[in-house]
Amino acid sequence: MTRRRQIYEGKAKILYEGPEPGTIIQYFKDDATAFNAQKRGTINGKGVINNRISEYVFTRLSHIGIPTHFIRRLNMREQLVRQVEIVPIEVVVRNVAAGSICTRLGLEEGEPLPHTLIEYCYKDDALGDPLIAEEHIACFGWASNEEMQDIASMAIRVNDFLCGMFAAINIRLVDFKLEFGRIYDGDFSRVILADEISPDGCRLWDMTSGEKLDKDRFRRDLGGEEEAYQEVARRLGLLQNDDS
Amino acid sequence: MTRRRQIYEGKAKILYEGPEPGTIIQYFKDDATAFNAQKRGTINGKGVINNRISEYVFTRLSHIGIPTHFIRRLNMREQLVRQVEIVPIEVVVRNVAAGSICTRLGLEEGEPLPHTLIEYCYKDDALGDPLIAEEHIACFGWASNEEMQDIASMAIRVNDFLCGMFAAINIRLVDFKLEFGRIYDGDFSRVILADEISPDGCRLWDMTSGEKLDKDRFRRDLGGEEEAYQEVARRLGLLQNDDS
Ligand SMILES: Nc1ncnc2c1ncn2[C@@H]1O[C@H](COP(=O)(O)OP(=O)(O)O)[C@@H](O)[C@H]1O
Ligand SMILES: Nc1ncnc2c1ncn2[C@@H]1O[C@H](COP(=O)(O)OP(=O)(O)O)[C@@H](O)[C@H]1O
Ligand SMILES: [Mg+2]
Ligand SMILES: [Mg+2]
Repeated sequence: MTRRRQIYEGKAKILYEGPEPGTIIQYFKDDATAFNAQKRGTINGKGVINNRISEYVFTRLSHIGIPTHFIRRLNMREQLVRQVEIVPIEVVVRNVAAGSICTRLGLEEGEPLPHTLIEYCYKDDALGDPLIAEEHIACFGWASNEEMQDIASMAIRVNDFLCGMFAAINIRLVDFKLEFGRIYDGDFSRVILADEISPDGCRLWDMTSGEKLDKDRFRRDLGGEEEAYQEVARRLGLLQNDDS
Repeated sequence: MTRRRQIYEGKAKILYEGPEPGTIIQYFKDDATAFNAQKRGTINGKGVINNRISEYVFTRLSHIGIPTHFIRRLNMREQLVRQVEIVPIEVVVRNVAAGSICTRLGLEEGEPLPHTLIEYCYKDDALGDPLIAEEHIACFGWASNEEMQDIASMAIRVNDFLCGMFAAINIRLVDFKLEFGRIYDGDFSRVILADEISPDGCRLWDMTSGEKLDKDRFRRDLGGEEEAYQEVARRLGLLQNDDS
C-alpha cells in the first residue's frame, strides 16, 4: 500500500486521505476517552466492532433515504467515506434521561422523557462541547436555518429507525450523538450524516435486564466493555462470519 | 397598616399579598447575591433605586405596548403589581459578550455579538439556572410554542427600547435578564413582562469610559456599587426630587 497522508487524529479515529479526491478513510482505533478526554483507556477490539456496526447502520439508513458519508468498508478497521465539512454541532437525541441531562436538569437516570428531545452542543473539546440553542447556531453562523431543519428532520428519522432496529434485538435506545457535514456541488451544498454510529456514541440498555451495552461501562468503570460491544455486534448478526 | 401575608422571600425582593385579589406587592431589599447565591452582601439603597428604575422602565414599556405586571409604586421600596404565574424561564438578551457566555463559548468580554442573542435558562436555583433550548421548553412543557413566540418578540422589543433609552444617557446595554408570567382570563391566558428591570439584572457600561454601572461591581469586588446604581438613576433623572 502506498503511503497515505494522515489528515487528523481524533480521540477514537484517524482520518487519512482517500484514494480519490473528496474521499477519506476513517481508521477506527481501540482508544476510549470519557469526560472530555480526562479519562483515557483502551477497549480491545472496539475499533473493529465500531467499524462494522457503523457500516451496518449507515448502509441501512441510506436504504431509507438518509444521505450519509459512507461509501464502503475497506478492512477490519477502515472505511471509505465522502469527505465533508463537518458542521461543528453535536446532535444529541434523547429518548430516556441519562448522563449529562440528569445532573443538568435534575432528572432521574432511566426516566423516560415526555417526548424525544434533540439537544445541540458546540463541538469544541477545549470548551467541553457546551450545550447550545438554535439561537447560538444562528448568531455565530455555525449552520444555516435550512441546514438545521434538515439536520433536525434527519435526526428524528434516524432515531425512529434506530429505535426499531435496537428494539428488534431487545435493546432500548436511550440516547445517541450524531454529526453532520456539508458536501458541495458547485455553489450548492447539502448536509449529510457523517462520523459514526456505534456503542461509543449511543446509550444502549438491554430491555430485559437493563444492563448497559455501551461506553458507559468504560465511563463508569463497570467492566466488561469488550463483551458489551461484542454483544451488540452479535445481536445485530455481525459476528458470525469474521471475514475481514 | 394591617398585617400583610408574606408570599415569598427571594434573593432581592419580598412578595406580599396585595390589597386586591390578583395583586401582589414587591418589596425591594438591599440584599445582593451572586454566583447562584454563593456570594452574599448588601448594596445600600439598592432596593430604593431598583424600585424606582423598574417603575420608570415598566411604565415606559407599557407606553410602547408591552404588557407588564406593573400597576403603581407604593413607596420607596414597594410597588404594586399584578400577580402572575411565573414562566420558569429566565430570558437573557445579549448584545455584547460578557459574563457566563464568555467562558461557555470562549468569547472575549466586550466582543460585540454578530447579532443580538436570546438565551433561555431554566429558573431553578438548585440547578444553577442551567441554559436550555426551546427543545427543552417544549419537551418539559415549561411554556407553549405560542407563549415562546410572544416572549421572544417582546424580549426583542424590550431590547430595542432599552438600547435606545440607555444610549440616550451614554450607557451601553450589554445584556439583561427578563422574566415573564401568565395572567388568566377564564380559560385563556396571556404572557406579560414581570419581575423587575434594574442594574441587578442588566450589564450597563458607560459608553465613554467603559465603566461598569451594574451588579458586576459587586460580583467582581470592584467597589462603588452604591454609586454605580445611583449614577444610573441620576442619569435617568430619577434622583432630583426625593419625594415619597
Ligand atoms: N466524512 C467526514 N469528513 C471529514 N471529517 C469527518 C467525517 N466524518 C467524521 N469526521 C470528523 O473526523 C473526526 C473523527 O475522529 P474522532 O476520533 O471521532 O474525533 P474527535 O476526537 O474530534 O471526536 C471527528 O472530528 C469528526 O467530526
Ligand atoms: N408579578 C409577579 N407575580 C408573581 N411572582 C412574581 C411576579 N414578579 C416576579 N415574581 C417572582 O417573585 C420573585 C422576586 O423576588 P426575587 O428576590 O427576585 O426572587 P428570586 O431569588 O427567586 O430571583 C421571583 O421569584 C420572581 O419570579
Ligand atoms: Mg468523535
Ligand atoms: Mg430574582
